[in-house]
Amino acid sequence: MNDDRLDPSSRIPGTATGNPRFSPDDLFKKLINGNRGALGRAITLPESRNLDDISSKRRLMDLCRTRPGQSVRIGITGMPGAGKSTLIERLGLYVIARSHRVAVLAVDPTSELSGGSILGDKTRMEKLATNPGAFIRPSPNSGILGGVTEMTRETIILCEAAGYDVLLIETVGVGQAEFGVHAMVDYLILLTIAGAGDDLQGIKRGIMEMADAVFVNKSDGDRTTATRHAAADIRSALKMIPRRPGEQPIPVLTGSALTGQGIESLWVTASKYLEAERATGKFGQRRQTQRTAWFEDAVQYHIRMMLAADQKLTDLRKELLKDLDSGRIDPVSAASRFVEEISGKSH
Amino acid sequence: MNDDRLDPSSRIPGTATGNPRFSPDDLFKKLINGNRGALGRAITLPESRNLDDISSKRRLMDLCRTRPGQSVRIGITGMPGAGKSTLIERLGLYVIARSHRVAVLAVDPTSELSGGSILGDKTRMEKLATNPGAFIRPSPNSGILGGVTEMTRETIILCEAAGYDVLLIETVGVGQAEFGVHAMVDYLILLTIAGAGDDLQGIKRGIMEMADAVFVNKSDGDRTTATRHAAADIRSALKMIPRRPGEQPIPVLTGSALTGQGIESLWVTASKYLEAERATGKFGQRRQTQRTAWFEDAVQYHIRMMLAADQKLTDLRKELLKDLDSGRIDPVSAASRFVEEISGKSH
Repeated sequence: MNDDRLDPSSRIPGTATGNPRFSPDDLFKKLINGNRGALGRAITLPESRNLDDISSKRRLMDLCRTRPGQSVRIGITGMPGAGKSTLIERLGLYVIARSHRVAVLAVDPTSELSGGSILGDKTRMEKLATNPGAFIRPSPNSGILGGVTEMTRETIILCEAAGYDVLLIETVGVGQAEFGVHAMVDYLILLTIAGAGDDLQGIKRGIMEMADAVFVNKSDGDRTTATRHAAADIRSALKMIPRRPGEQPIPVLTGSALTGQGIESLWVTASKYLEAERATGKFGQRRQTQRTAWFEDAVQYHIRMMLAADQKLTDLRKELLKDLDSGRIDPVSAASRFVEEISGKSH
Repeated sequence: MNDDRLDPSSRIPGTATGNPRFSPDDLFKKLINGNRGALGRAITLPESRNLDDISSKRRLMDLCRTRPGQSVRIGITGMPGAGKSTLIERLGLYVIARSHRVAVLAVDPTSELSGGSILGDKTRMEKLATNPGAFIRPSPNSGILGGVTEMTRETIILCEAAGYDVLLIETVGVGQAEFGVHAMVDYLILLTIAGAGDDLQGIKRGIMEMADAVFVNKSDGDRTTATRHAAADIRSALKMIPRRPGEQPIPVLTGSALTGQGIESLWVTASKYLEAERATGKFGQRRQTQRTAWFEDAVQYHIRMMLAADQKLTDLRKELLKDLDSGRIDPVSAASRFVEEISGKSH
């Protein structure tokens, strides 16, 4: 019996493009029963620019709210080459062996511009990808600013409703991406390696300030001494980052995702921290703050979608940008004209 | 004769609150004739949430577009204590002596949240404040995200139309502020001092990457050796920042705003750079890119203003945030309801 196949009888009338639709209630039922096909379908529920589709997604999210569960959301960031995929696979298999179910999500906000996803390639995590306790999802694409963040947040909720209680959220440490991920996780691990250049080169200070732990990876073979030195350097660099009173210094661990050394220690460190945060109520507060930020971001995102879906506005925008380029209009007047067109609709 | 006083006959009917209004054409005429009162009035032209006011500002900006001029916009950033005010006063007086007219603008985006301006206190620049060739403007306040940036950009255009050809735009180096300033200047100077802590502590790498020059200030008295060492350290740190092929390393200068030493060298360095950028066309390209970004930001800002001005939406927002806090609704559903309310108005 293939539990992952959707029953065709649950389809509701298809869209014009021929994509079958499923009712949100039906999707939800299958999803909480562990049907991976339903989870995938729910995640790709068409990003809508009309209110019917928004309602479907909303109904589904409302249903998910009834099953919050006890998940932990862990972000993993680091430069290309730091060994993120290997670490995620190793950590994922480790927690699955401890009776957890793991969802791996990739976040690549640059795909909003480039259109291409560079993360979440399942072939990089072969063992995890074929493990029944794991669900791997590459970074979504979206032509609209904020789309990747929005979809990733929804995917987190859907995965949790589907019973995945450890979320590993991967992002590439190249710039603004970590800010988005930091705003949706309970714990952020910064991955680095010895010889990535000195501290300034290898780790942006902004990311260090957000990290809850640093893991210096690839401590294997003849690299163990170099790794130990790199960890010491990072520890002294971290001392200069102001912490709130009573706060512990950020732990800097070493290990090797390749050999598995240090993975248990990383998991124990994260778990102890999150346990303490739950006990003090900080865990819940952080989630609450994130929910409010999500609301604000989602409003902005939906407004952008509405504007982008309006052909007249899209045409006007193009025209104004052309006039701006040629110097026929200034930015304030161009923006005023655009906004007049929007507000004209509301009068 | 006091040229700075506005002719009451130029007033047009006042607002309900009793503030007199001036026609944009009249304001513009006075403004280009060097009337400081008119410039101040133009800058504070009420930030409008209704279309009549938007039209006034738009008309004024349109008129200013007819007088683009040949200005340079220089950003100055640095930690509190780096000596920004002293440097701006010294540099301002230096360029005024070379037949320029100088406008000093302060940008404090944190005032959007705190409501208080910490920059642009004229008493910190006494000699410059009383010089007829200078115009000093503290950071605007705005309760709406993006308001400070929007108003500063408009103020730049107004000052340029009023004949100020050197714009010194001050911001405090505490975080995101520099990104906003970087997006509106031709040249960004990072100010620092020896002993501000080591590089990681004193200068965020992100700011160093944006700077066109670093000026290590307070090289006076017994601090000259320390300043020279600090400059050398910064130079080697800067070597690690990747530059585009053919690009020169970022110049690191030393000097003292107090004694004036190094100020001429700073001005010459900036001028030569900008001259070269004009020759290659990069100067114009940068401005063009900034105008497009301005348009996009201004649209977002105006939309936020429109939403904030709508009492029904404001009430709904409060209610949704309360429901979000108590867990009665999830962020997606809350955002959808809010967006439905907005789009309901357009159908």
